[in-house]
Amino acid sequence: MSMNPNFTLSCPIPIQQYPTVLLAHGGGGKLMHQLIEQMFVPAFSNATLNVRQDAAAIALNGQNLAFTTDSYVVRPLFFPGGDIGSLAVNGTVNDLAMVGARPLYLSAGFILEEGLPMETLWRIVQSMQQAAQAANVQIVTGDTKVVDNGKGDGIFVNTAGIGIIEYPQIIAPQSVQPGDVVILNGDIGRHGIAIMAVREGLEFETTIESDSAPLADLVLQLLAAGIEIHCMRDLTRGGLASALNEIAEVAGMEIAIVETQIPVREDVQGACEILGFDPLYVANEGRFVAFIPTKDAEQALGIMRSHKIEKENSNLSDINPCIIGYVTEKSSGIVKMTSKIGVQRIVDMLSGEQLPRIC
Amino acid sequence: MSMNPNFTLSCPIPIQQYPTVLLAHGGGGKLMHQLIEQMFVPAFSNATLNVRQDAAAIALNGQNLAFTTDSYVVRPLFFPGGDIGSLAVNGTVNDLAMVGARPLYLSAGFILEEGLPMETLWRIVQSMQQAAQAANVQIVTGDTKVVDNGKGDGIFVNTAGIGIIEYPQIIAPQSVQPGDVVILNGDIGRHGIAIMAVREGLEFETTIESDSAPLADLVLQLLAAGIEIHCMRDLTRGGLASALNEIAEVAGMEIAIVETQIPVREDVQGACEILGFDPLYVANEGRFVAFIPTKDAEQALGIMRSHKIEKENSNLSDINPCIIGYVTEKSSGIVKMTSKIGVQRIVDMLSGEQLPRIC
Repeated sequence: MSMNPNFTLSCPIPIQQYPTVLLAHGGGGKLMHQLIEQMFVPAFSNATLNVRQDAAAIALNGQNLAFTTDSYVVRPLFFPGGDIGSLAVNGTVNDLAMVGARPLYLSAGFILEEGLPMETLWRIVQSMQQAAQAANVQIVTGDTKVVDNGKGDGIFVNTAGIGIIEYPQIIAPQSVQPGDVVILNGDIGRHGIAIMAVREGLEFETTIESDSAPLADLVLQLLAAGIEIHCMRDLTRGGLASALNEIAEVAGMEIAIVETQIPVREDVQGACEILGFDPLYVANEGRFVAFIPTKDAEQALGIMRSHKIEKENSNLSDINPCIIGYVTEKSSGIVKMTSKIGVQRIVDMLSGEQLPRIC
Repeated sequence: MSMNPNFTLSCPIPIQQYPTVLLAHGGGGKLMHQLIEQMFVPAFSNATLNVRQDAAAIALNGQNLAFTTDSYVVRPLFFPGGDIGSLAVNGTVNDLAMVGARPLYLSAGFILEEGLPMETLWRIVQSMQQAAQAANVQIVTGDTKVVDNGKGDGIFVNTAGIGIIEYPQIIAPQSVQPGDVVILNGDIGRHGIAIMAVREGLEFETTIESDSAPLADLVLQLLAAGIEIHCMRDLTRGGLASALNEIAEVAGMEIAIVETQIPVREDVQGACEILGFDPLYVANEGRFVAFIPTKDAEQALGIMRSHKIEKENSNLSDINPCIIGYVTEKSSGIVKMTSKIGVQRIVDMLSGEQLPRIC
């Protein structure tokens, strides 16, 4: 091979504007979107990557598989309702579930900082194994690296996952149709607020626990019941607003949602007000939106309401799956929301960094 | 689920002795081995994980796949003969190759430190893409996280890989037989010394370049020719000595090697003497051992010698595939070496940390 010819190509991110990586480049909003769309996707360009889903759908001798990866850098490592270990399993399981795959196998890559208490590692490893059992996946391969003290932050965990796609429907933004309803599987904002409450030392009357949970079993029940799911997305970094914007943009559709239909727990709403956050942009780890034709909406809601989310300490009364809006028409891809006082406004993708290191 | 019952289990690593994670826990030697065998394998226990290979062999509706992951934390990010990007592709491709799989798909997970120059990221991304093209794999899914300044070290890259196993033979330590010859595909020690030379500011008459290279094409040529490969292992962290010890232990066989048969370039040998390293323990990123029955040895060597390693700036005259030893008998699993002066000694697994952050 000749001497790296592409090294002469100039950086696709405007260096004058962004000479260095900012926290917001990992925040799930506009800057991360720019990095993915302008750098990673063109550089690694191939038909699979270009589908822009949380998991890649790959064909392997006639077998349809899903493949995904996520690194987890959440601080603190342990928080009400979860820890970096269970998050690393649930997050990757959920990325597979969002393309309709049955998660089967995970890898686990650890980047440990010299000086991490061995007991901390052990707690995290056990939490991963419990989460893997709950989600019915096996951790089959792994790797351990240690970086010198001061060059990491305790522990970072990467998981990659393989799932099998058993249903023929293409679950992707491209399948979204005008008239589809947007179903949300529960209240939003708990994961992000649970993390921030610990970081800021805030105390509420009740402890706000992360909603971190595996979603694959519920999704597979929906598919088994014949629900025609067009698209799904879990509401992690960037929250509900960013997820809907990504889908609207790729689908080239307008999405209209109704603020009063979006469940937010009172304590979460209160914490958002204190901290200056908009719950629409706060990360969740057990919440997703599904785009479904009207004909299937009631049945889907019924299945969601009767499903026991596999989650410790889950207060089921908080979870209230509901229709929060619908796809109105082909458009340039915007999200509109009718606010509590009846005014319609555009809901944009997250700009800047709302909550760093939330997952 | 009830309240984490396993959290009451005590840590399987003796806390009095190892209260915290040490650099050596990631060094590829005894402490990493202990961490894997005493913590990860029992915790994540399943039939696949227990095979103790670089890649897991998984069956999926009758299709045999290989699945592996590695995180890369090498310092410096760029070094003679490679960089963290090409290393992250070649390393994972090689782990798949070592179980006889044809590598097909990779994931890419980035953990970026706030403040990383955008141009640095771009150079690494391009290098990954070039390495992926050279190894004939596609990067189909990815993830980006950003950690605050001072909580990372520029960039860490995780790749996971999926390959397809097209040949029926089980390539694993368990398949090793007495009488097998041990073939090494080239000179050892260049990757580790290339890294250390940059770190220590050492200058040699010629630049020592990393041997980082993708090995899958060569391995697939051996398999296609009908070579009965019993086991392979690439010689990364812990070097040749640790790889042979791992295989000897799992196979329950004694391996005898001959020091004068192991190619080490003169400049590498000289650098090892200056730095106080034993080349047997220095990391490589394009070298592997193959355990092959005597009948196939000549043919395998012929294929290796005529194969053009897909590597920039590779000085092919350095690469001299050769037989370095053989499997003598069933035993408790030790590696013996006849030294240059004709004395036989036991070659142990790396203890402690020889070269931190080499990959």
